[in-house]
Amino acid sequence: MASLPAGVGWRLLSSLVLFLWLSAAAHAATHHHEWEISYQFKSPDCVRKLAVTINGQSPGPTIRATQGDTIVVRLNNSLLTENVAIHWHGIRQIGTPWADGTEGVTQCPILPGDAFTYTFAVDRPGTYMYHAHYGMQRSAGLYGMIVVAAAPGGPDAEPFAYDGEHAVLLNDWWHDSVYEQAAGLASVPMRWVGEPHSLLINGRGRFNCSAAAEGTCNATLPECDAPVFEVVPGKTYRFRIGSLTSLCALNFEIEGHPMTVVEADGHYVKPFVVNNLNIYSGETYSVLIKADQDPSRNYWLASNVVSRKPGTPTGTAILSYAAGGRSPPPTAPPTGPAWNDTMYRFQQSVATVAHPAHVEPPPPRAGRTLLLLNTQNKIDGRVRWALNNVSFKLPHTPYLVALKRGLLGAFDQRPPPETYEHQSYNIYDPPPNPNATSSDGLYRLAFGSVVDVVLQNANMLAANNSETHPWHLHGHDFWVLGYGIGRFDPAVHPATYNLKDPILKNTVAVHPYGWTALRFKADNPGVWAFHCHIEAHFFMGMGIVFEEGIERVAELPGEIMGCGKTKGGGHL
Amino acid sequence: MASLPAGVGWRLLSSLVLFLWLSAAAHAATHHHEWEISYQFKSPDCVRKLAVTINGQSPGPTIRATQGDTIVVRLNNSLLTENVAIHWHGIRQIGTPWADGTEGVTQCPILPGDAFTYTFAVDRPGTYMYHAHYGMQRSAGLYGMIVVAAAPGGPDAEPFAYDGEHAVLLNDWWHDSVYEQAAGLASVPMRWVGEPHSLLINGRGRFNCSAAAEGTCNATLPECDAPVFEVVPGKTYRFRIGSLTSLCALNFEIEGHPMTVVEADGHYVKPFVVNNLNIYSGETYSVLIKADQDPSRNYWLASNVVSRKPGTPTGTAILSYAAGGRSPPPTAPPTGPAWNDTMYRFQQSVATVAHPAHVEPPPPRAGRTLLLLNTQNKIDGRVRWALNNVSFKLPHTPYLVALKRGLLGAFDQRPPPETYEHQSYNIYDPPPNPNATSSDGLYRLAFGSVVDVVLQNANMLAANNSETHPWHLHGHDFWVLGYGIGRFDPAVHPATYNLKDPILKNTVAVHPYGWTALRFKADNPGVWAFHCHIEAHFFMGMGIVFEEGIERVAELPGEIMGCGKTKGGGHL
Repeated sequence: MASLPAGVGWRLLSSLVLFLWLSAAAHAATHHHEWEISYQFKSPDCVRKLAVTINGQSPGPTIRATQGDTIVVRLNNSLLTENVAIHWHGIRQIGTPWADGTEGVTQCPILPGDAFTYTFAVDRPGTYMYHAHYGMQRSAGLYGMIVVAAAPGGPDAEPFAYDGEHAVLLNDWWHDSVYEQAAGLASVPMRWVGEPHSLLINGRGRFNCSAAAEGTCNATLPECDAPVFEVVPGKTYRFRIGSLTSLCALNFEIEGHPMTVVEADGHYVKPFVVNNLNIYSGETYSVLIKADQDPSRNYWLASNVVSRKPGTPTGTAILSYAAGGRSPPPTAPPTGPAWNDTMYRFQQSVATVAHPAHVEPPPPRAGRTLLLLNTQNKIDGRVRWALNNVSFKLPHTPYLVALKRGLLGAFDQRPPPETYEHQSYNIYDPPPNPNATSSDGLYRLAFGSVVDVVLQNANMLAANNSETHPWHLHGHDFWVLGYGIGRFDPAVHPATYNLKDPILKNTVAVHPYGWTALRFKADNPGVWAFHCHIEAHFFMGMGIVFEEGIERVAELPGEIMGCGKTKGGGHL
Repeated sequence: MASLPAGVGWRLLSSLVLFLWLSAAAHAATHHHEWEISYQFKSPDCVRKLAVTINGQSPGPTIRATQGDTIVVRLNNSLLTENVAIHWHGIRQIGTPWADGTEGVTQCPILPGDAFTYTFAVDRPGTYMYHAHYGMQRSAGLYGMIVVAAAPGGPDAEPFAYDGEHAVLLNDWWHDSVYEQAAGLASVPMRWVGEPHSLLINGRGRFNCSAAAEGTCNATLPECDAPVFEVVPGKTYRFRIGSLTSLCALNFEIEGHPMTVVEADGHYVKPFVVNNLNIYSGETYSVLIKADQDPSRNYWLASNVVSRKPGTPTGTAILSYAAGGRSPPPTAPPTGPAWNDTMYRFQQSVATVAHPAHVEPPPPRAGRTLLLLNTQNKIDGRVRWALNNVSFKLPHTPYLVALKRGLLGAFDQRPPPETYEHQSYNIYDPPPNPNATSSDGLYRLAFGSVVDVVLQNANMLAANNSETHPWHLHGHDFWVLGYGIGRFDPAVHPATYNLKDPILKNTVAVHPYGWTALRFKADNPGVWAFHCHIEAHFFMGMGIVFEEGIERVAELPGEIMGCGKTKGGGHL
């Protein structure tokens, strides 16, 4: 499939895919979920805060399905004055680009009082997530996990065995509201919210109540008890681990239990063993551990901040051997690797390649290469992020509708730049021209073409500082062809790409002062966001959008419309 | 006009009104305003809070115009995930019912990124206000004043003289966000935000920083300096006073300066003198004062809570005689009358009648009478307010569109009850049946008919407690026919109505355990909300809606649509 020349045999292939789908559908299940989105006072870290919840819960319910199943989520917005949209992170939405849930890209926001139904197939097994994709709403608590089991006996059956499984969803958490956080980011000067107050595991953390405002913190609430993961001695467990942090790169460890990494973003990994796992916002991993330690006590699960100087206590949970009940381990929780050990994290990135039995080789070359310089900039005094000095802003008419209906005035028709002055730019200095421009232009891709994107990291506005950016692509998995530290040279580095067994992922880290090269095939008709998964960074312009095969997109459902130029149903 | 029999000569009258309008329009001005709604950190009482602002300000700019002018406000919603709608309080919107700004009644909310243009005539001189009318957004800071001068030489010229004028807009203010306040009201059990932290005068108050959370309060900010109103000794000043409190009935006083009340809600009052003025949320008054006190010092303007046990310090501003500069008066601020002296406030209500030269007599009788019992109730454990045991909920499709287009499924077609068991109900006891039902049904009025509404207050859920409810009618002024304390008896009290010189108002108080009778003519084609102006009370169901002459409403502008069943422009 991947080596088919672009544009050749697509009609045939589409028919084949359709046939396979229909065959599978006979056995596939449809899972209906009815969700109410509402504000609720929650105390995830013992401090009371208004959260945006699903059926009263944050995180929301875990969606479980089997490969080939269809998920139907009917979402009722019971917020008062605030709209909502939910993205199904890692689900490619093949044939259903309008269900991607990305406000401004694939749909209008869902108004209070309105209902909206997301219907999509989960065509690959693996560990996925969902979360709000509107403003900074994800940080308000609207997120959860999607677990898709492999079709029994199918070609995607897991190449590893285990006796039981647990799900671990990591997050960071502030007591300031997302409205305050967002307004602060847009203020001149920027009012930065600061480091997270807590790190959450499955929506639970533990703030030191003595540091909280009077009457807001209650350490005895069951709601902020440490999560407990039970294991039976001698058994092997799969831990599905996802991160939806707003800000932080994390390091996750299960005290005393080395982890064998077996899955990343829904793709099987050539197994490798780590004592702790670096995980970036938007990523998922599965690891295997064996419950082979002294069963008379319990062990910590620990989440620690890396890649920025930590100002947040370790997030903890308990691995419980039956004899230990729910008691905290007798040890201090692991504190993770040195936060600024970039190479430690870099090496783990490089180690993540495809499982030998599940290699899907990338096309040997790309028809087009985007070289995107990631910089922190300013526009009208506001701090922004930019790619090749262009800071992204979302249009008010979703691209999907605007492009399908030819509403050309809905966004800037000039495409953003494909490259930057890579010969002369010094990535180790703050940007010499900090003033960026903003645009809602997008990249239009030839359908079926192969595209390389090289993300080049650089110094921020302040000297001697470069952050880790986890970039997430909607509608696709991409091959991770290579990583480097320093400036990417198009004349040199492509020769070093791993074309043999690159992992397919939907989210990948760009390390401090580093570059990451990825390749994907533009074969999924729709409009797809590609952005840094740090909530504040996308909000501040760190993203781009791809269009491919818009003419192949089926008739759009009316319910994605209602805003901007689609206010009258797109007839305006 | 008012004595024309219903339904007779309306075509003729409409033509006449149109002619007069067109004649007036030749001399009338159009005032264009461009407003951006955004979040900003404000410190109105020295404590930093995220506010919803107009062009960065809260309160927003004062709109000034002359009778007969047209106001055009182009509103750009720059909030992030939150919609907005603005009501022009006291403006009857004759011929422009779609510009009333009442979300769910006359329009869909305005989405982030969208613009919406309100265009309406100010056909009467007087003191009016504007504010958000969506969720509890008004309490977030989105409010301001409208001052309409009388057309020079016209029949509505002011029957009083003054040398200068000042505007005073009163409010109450909490440090908790409106999202938290609203979620608290909807919680089981209800989480009540408590008494306001501050009382604001023209958006300024002064919180005691020692009681504020660390780092949030700064008493040296110019933003929370006391407002100063300058007067020249010997001159007479008109003070235009409005209240947009979310909760509190207020008493306003200008220390040492008796006030002559001359205007209420845009209608001239038979002048009477008070030492202090009771003012309820949604009301406006004009008073005259003479600057005849010792000019070597300054005097307090004071705003105090009445009708509920005050838990909020006096709101203050400074009346400055030139010699006093901006210095605070040497005295303690006035503390107002006893908060629980209902009869004191009752008597001031009764004293407010039409100016002898501006009496517009009411129709002698009504064709229909609604007797509405105001009670606090519960639905599914939630505290609600109800009229005749029906608690109002807003539909998700605006009535105006639903009725005009015959979208009958958009709301409950069963009208709410017209009366209650007034013979047997004991208003001094908590409701014997606290369980209400909720409905979005409305009252449909015969066009041109005369309608009486008697609002009957009662005891709340807790014993020995009855609050003051300021009821506000959209699209109309109504004659205030009478007030009483105790149970209204339809066989007795109508004979006591003041049909001679009742004041016309758009907002009127219903006193504790009391009743208020009002009359209006259903002659303004449109759909109009009528509700308690306490933000929390309307949010909790204390309102009804009238339809009249929907068939006479001109073609609706598309921009009021886009939600509920009008999502596709109303064609669904």
